[in-house]
Amino acid sequence: MNQVRLNKILKRMEDSGIPQLIICDPASIFYLTGQWIHPGERMLALYLTLSGQHKLFVNELFLGMKQPEVETVWFNDMQQGAEALAPFINEAEPVGVDKTWTANFLLRLMELKKTGSFVNGSGLVDCVRMIKDAEEQQLMREASQLNDVAIDRVIALVSQNYSEKKLAQLLPEIYGDLGAEGCSFDPIIAYGAHGATSHHEPEECLLKPGDSVIIDIGCRKNSYCSDMTRTVFYKFVSDEAKKIYNIVLEANRRAIEKVKPGARFCDIDAAARDYIAAAGYGQFFNHRTGHSIGLDVHDYGDVSSANTNAVEPGMIFSIEPSLKLPGECGVRIEDLVLVTQSGVEVLNAYDKELLIVE
Amino acid sequence: MNQVRLNKILKRMEDSGIPQLIICDPASIFYLTGQWIHPGERMLALYLTLSGQHKLFVNELFLGMKQPEVETVWFNDMQQGAEALAPFINEAEPVGVDKTWTANFLLRLMELKKTGSFVNGSGLVDCVRMIKDAEEQQLMREASQLNDVAIDRVIALVSQNYSEKKLAQLLPEIYGDLGAEGCSFDPIIAYGAHGATSHHEPEECLLKPGDSVIIDIGCRKNSYCSDMTRTVFYKFVSDEAKKIYNIVLEANRRAIEKVKPGARFCDIDAAARDYIAAAGYGQFFNHRTGHSIGLDVHDYGDVSSANTNAVEPGMIFSIEPSLKLPGECGVRIEDLVLVTQSGVEVLNAYDKELLIVE
Repeated sequence: MNQVRLNKILKRMEDSGIPQLIICDPASIFYLTGQWIHPGERMLALYLTLSGQHKLFVNELFLGMKQPEVETVWFNDMQQGAEALAPFINEAEPVGVDKTWTANFLLRLMELKKTGSFVNGSGLVDCVRMIKDAEEQQLMREASQLNDVAIDRVIALVSQNYSEKKLAQLLPEIYGDLGAEGCSFDPIIAYGAHGATSHHEPEECLLKPGDSVIIDIGCRKNSYCSDMTRTVFYKFVSDEAKKIYNIVLEANRRAIEKVKPGARFCDIDAAARDYIAAAGYGQFFNHRTGHSIGLDVHDYGDVSSANTNAVEPGMIFSIEPSLKLPGECGVRIEDLVLVTQSGVEVLNAYDKELLIVE
Repeated sequence: MNQVRLNKILKRMEDSGIPQLIICDPASIFYLTGQWIHPGERMLALYLTLSGQHKLFVNELFLGMKQPEVETVWFNDMQQGAEALAPFINEAEPVGVDKTWTANFLLRLMELKKTGSFVNGSGLVDCVRMIKDAEEQQLMREASQLNDVAIDRVIALVSQNYSEKKLAQLLPEIYGDLGAEGCSFDPIIAYGAHGATSHHEPEECLLKPGDSVIIDIGCRKNSYCSDMTRTVFYKFVSDEAKKIYNIVLEANRRAIEKVKPGARFCDIDAAARDYIAAAGYGQFFNHRTGHSIGLDVHDYGDVSSANTNAVEPGMIFSIEPSLKLPGECGVRIEDLVLVTQSGVEVLNAYDKELLIVE
């Protein structure tokens, strides 16, 4: 296991009075062991204890994988994972569990360990993962550099020849050509009024002149994720759409300018939100300004009004204000930023000025 | 909501003494409401009660969606979903929760409702979803018919021109051309010894003469999933590989022959497993024989030695025995089968005889 990372987590466990922790997020397990295991609906758990008796619980289905560096307890489809884990749990002490552990395993373990005290212990790992070390920062830069090239290729294809869906379907191949592992999330391509709905799924529709075109894409390269959004216009841009484009662009810039060690997430959020509200469009910006990113495209840590924590050097998150005008159009401009010792480094270099494509 | 489906679930809740149920699986919510919502890390919950006060809890991010038919409680990123849900929960009665509900929401709700009794209530929905009605059966047939065409196209491309990864990357486009929504899972393409590892992720490697080629693919069409595996050989097949191919093929056929109302899942599993064991290869078949499938590619219900339930008309599951010879090759042959009133209907028509491609 990566001792530096492990020790940071153990330190936090000690400080929090949580001497045992069940980690199930495959990304967290990769973070510590260097090994990706995708268990599907089977249980996967890395059990850490302050006494150092760490154990990995894996279904025998994965026996063929490289032998993990941590002591491994194998179980099979005829057993329940929680049954394999239960004998090691100390009921007398709090048990931290990952926020994404599912109820089937958690409730079964609680049944087997009736007097145990189970708490959400995700923060113990997530807060360590939030601070990227130098190697991770470099991998994040590389993933975003590939994304700059990819979005340029996508924008060059925006035309009557491609439905939203067809354009989205090109991304795996584009990323493959660029040497990435694939998409870090399902690409979002949204034309015109579709840009006004959240997490739109690409459809078979074609472009109409004047449409806004939201392109929200990211790749995974050496396990690390990129994520960027640009909005372009097809043939022409209406005065209203141009106005909201420039409001979103300015909101994006103001939030980025705010990023430096010590600034609070909520202040960064407010820099974008207050500007949009002052322009009279507050009601059309209905989500957080951004999210942390790393091994998961949505890592722990929101850039939102509810998060009063201060940002620290090594954190990487998105800045993605948007305006969604129902029935009309949508504009979102998203960059990834790295908090440096003195300020901010923007990981995307792709141009943000209003672009009309023919 | 779909009243027929809802009533079946409410009946089961009543019979089980679970008067309230929190459903979070987006597929189950689609099954009841006809609406797909992909909440990502936000909470999504459909709360059913025997008193009929059903409520859907959705993040405001999704306000733009078609208005659900069920009373909806909106919350936003500044609130916690569990806080919105808690006031409606009756602490005096057991609360069923979906097996995939995550610990962050469940533990928070348990904290807010300290005297509540929370149990895994997934079976109440999953057992209803296992029995496909006539419309669902037809949609499942159509998804598998598309998969037959898709695998034929993939097999036609097997050559030195395509790495595992390149071949896998073609699937979204192939399915798109065929009118499907996309892949129902990440395609598995495994050459030679890669076929001996579970859930192999396609790599940049090329074929060697004599390699086995596992092609495990599926699409989603009208929300329903297909899933099929064929194994072909490149240029030639060794005597050993031919032998194990025919063992797997016979195991697949024996398990399928066993399928009829009243047969137990474990008997169907045994039909494949015992044949493979008798041939001397038992140790190389290390997983369940199959899984249920429908709105999820892995629906609830294993075809395994641990499942002593009897199959019923309308159930659809995979039959996918395999042999994995570490360092050498792998063979898997997978079909989807529908339990009919009198026996079995195989949803895939693609040929299973040993095929050598040039």
